[in-house]
Amino acid sequence: MAMDPDAVAKAFVEHYYRTFDTNRAALVGLYQETSMLTFEGEKFQGPNAIAGKLGSLPFQACEHTIVTVDCQPSGPQGGMLVFVSGSIRTGPEEHPIKFSQAFHLLPAGGSFFVQNDMFRLNYG
Amino acid sequence: MAMDPDAVAKAFVEHYYRTFDTNRAALVGLYQETSMLTFEGEKFQGPNAIAGKLGSLPFQACEHTIVTVDCQPSGPQGGMLVFVSGSIRTGPEEHPIKFSQAFHLLPAGGSFFVQNDMFRLNYG
Repeated sequence: MAMDPDAVAKAFVEHYYRTFDTNRAALVGLYQETSMLTFEGEKFQGPNAIAGKLGSLPFQACEHTIVTVDCQPSGPQGGMLVFVSGSIRTGPEEHPIKFSQAFHLLPAGGSFFVQNDMFRLNYG
Repeated sequence: MAMDPDAVAKAFVEHYYRTFDTNRAALVGLYQETSMLTFEGEKFQGPNAIAGKLGSLPFQACEHTIVTVDCQPSGPQGGMLVFVSGSIRTGPEEHPIKFSQAFHLLPAGGSFFVQNDMFRLNYG
């Protein structure tokens, strides 16, 4: 099945941030044992370590606003790079903080998993 | 030859931005025919199109300041993701503008080339 990369990227981004903002623990299903997250310079590998980090972030409610989504095929493996910029608000009384995030999606069983995830805040 | 990914990423980033700031046309050598650049949402493929875009940017002197460099192996192909944040000043009297950039490096002949390059300004 040939998929339009831009449509896959858009669907992934919508799913990822909606899940992050409403049911963060469910993000664990997007990662496999080889998956890596670098969050503000700290590295985590595998679904449990990654979901553990995301679950331990010191806020409950949060809201991502996406500004740009860029996407490219990542090479002969059939993967895809997704590069996102936006802002995150970690509570109703907090100011939004800009962030950038890069994902590398690899195909698995007709879908994709997140092989690489790199997140950085871009302080104003 | 086993290479330390963080050392490769650091060397690549230093080389890329020093070349960008002093001899932009020489960046052409980092790309191959399959390489893609997305620059502020505009897509270019192959060394000539990519170097043409970079060469046409409307400033001569510029100076990148790097704030963060993150790096992860990108999967079984032996590639590497490099995720950079920093600022760019496009002239001595201009204010620096924050940017983020993601590179996917793939191995070729004992070295690496840039398979994917995604650049975004993060307006303050």
